[in-house]
Amino acid sequence: MAFTNSRTVRIEWGDCDAAGIIFYPRYFEIFDASAAALFERALGITKYQMFKTLPFAGFPLVKTNARFLRPTRFGDDVTVESTIEFGRSSFEITHRLSLNGDVCAECTEMRVWTVRDAATGALKSSPVPENVLAKFR
Amino acid sequence: MAFTNSRTVRIEWGDCDAAGIIFYPRYFEIFDASAAALFERALGITKYQMFKTLPFAGFPLVKTNARFLRPTRFGDDVTVESTIEFGRSSFEITHRLSLNGDVCAECTEMRVWTVRDAATGALKSSPVPENVLAKFR
Amino acid sequence: MAFTNSRTVRIEWGDCDAAGIIFYPRYFEIFDASAAALFERALGITKYQMFKTLPFAGFPLVKTNARFLRPTRFGDDVTVESTIEFGRSSFEITHRLSLNGDVCAECTEMRVWTVRDAATGALKSSPVPENVLAKFR
Amino acid sequence: MAFTNSRTVRIEWGDCDAAGIIFYPRYFEIFDASAAALFERALGITKYQMFKTLPFAGFPLVKTNARFLRPTRFGDDVTVESTIEFGRSSFEITHRLSLNGDVCAECTEMRVWTVRDAATGALKSSPVPENVLAKFR
Repeated sequence: MAFTNSRTVRIEWGDCDAAGIIFYPRYFEIFDASAAALFERALGITKYQMFKTLPFAGFPLVKTNARFLRPTRFGDDVTVESTIEFGRSSFEITHRLSLNGDVCAECTEMRVWTVRDAATGALKSSPVPENVLAKFR
Repeated sequence: MAFTNSRTVRIEWGDCDAAGIIFYPRYFEIFDASAAALFERALGITKYQMFKTLPFAGFPLVKTNARFLRPTRFGDDVTVESTIEFGRSSFEITHRLSLNGDVCAECTEMRVWTVRDAATGALKSSPVPENVLAKFR
Repeated sequence: MAFTNSRTVRIEWGDCDAAGIIFYPRYFEIFDASAAALFERALGITKYQMFKTLPFAGFPLVKTNARFLRPTRFGDDVTVESTIEFGRSSFEITHRLSLNGDVCAECTEMRVWTVRDAATGALKSSPVPENVLAKFR
Repeated sequence: MAFTNSRTVRIEWGDCDAAGIIFYPRYFEIFDASAAALFERALGITKYQMFKTLPFAGFPLVKTNARFLRPTRFGDDVTVESTIEFGRSSFEITHRLSLNGDVCAECTEMRVWTVRDAATGALKSSPVPENVLAKFR
């Protein structure tokens, strides 16, 4: 089961460092927003609404790896293509960020679906709800 | 001489703090990008291209004041309306950020047009070029 | 009643933009952390502990104004001197950021003390508790 | 040849997201500053001074992988232990971020030493200078 979303992101002046190219932690901000956009595309509701309407307390990152192939600069309109594959309570999202068809960065993230423990309020992992999975098919 | 640009910005999960509302320094990132978008709208070129084709080394902020009236949250699509008025080598941009027609934040910035000093390479203020001003009329 | 705290902050590579100087929204991140440090200095507990032990739900910004006099660069160790004056449920913090004795930026913030409404959970302003005020005398 | 540096970092309110825990791109900002601190420890000069005194135009990231084991929160003073191993023009830095002795995040980065091409001004990788390597022994 794979599901893909694509969006365009403008690299801003404030995303770049003194070398004039993107400061790489900004890529992870872009990837995080792209993960939320992927769910919004499939479910038809924002992440904020997911908190309100689903047994859901966020999908924190467990691990990530990324490669940076070509720098991007302020004014660049990059394309981020994000693909998700589900496990039971975890899922993997792969982001491919490209400029004019050339891949500039690639990232794979492992995230877990979490809910709040009813007793303690602590975050704990939980199987992705079936009605969520159904929207990605 | 006043010139206005409007754009829509999505408030992201990563823009918000532990109170669940936007962390206010993120507003200034949005305003900075809105200043660049205003020039791009008038000149038809990105800020990156301004560096390449104009006597231009950035428009740093000299002062700003802002009011925060209503909080915004991740998933909100806010409208930023930016208006510029030119002095000689400085200009003032007013940003009004609203959600569903309600103003959430207002900001006024004083910025200066800078160029690199030919001898030292240092940033120095300089009159806004006439061909730039003409595009805003 | 005025109370002052001073701290040193390193300007980092990632705080700077393509002009090689600090990107001004980073100053507001520094000022926000300086506001928290001021309370920590007076109360002897972190902001996290304030949430746990006080009727407190944050001190969001209502308005701010700032002036930027000299740029700072990565590698600079700047001094931030923060002074607070209390109103009833609001307070004003003035930050003066300097490098080697030269003031580089000045900022005044108006913030409000907030608590969660018991019924709705919404943030609402509230008088600063007397036992908090006492620590600043 | 391995060289290690350790530093303490305060997790700030503005580093955390609406779940009340650190927003993971902030970890990469911390790791980037930790890489600079490692060089400053070995060379006795800041990254800014490296640009001024060495054939050096930055050490951009080529790839990274990271694991996030335990969340951290605002008010936490975490320890970042960074270890470097050199190749010819690339080097690997491993960061271990811990709180009270418990590892919270681990990250490995591959970076390249770059210089500006004399003809084009473009960034290009270059062997790490021998006098730099000597300082890490």
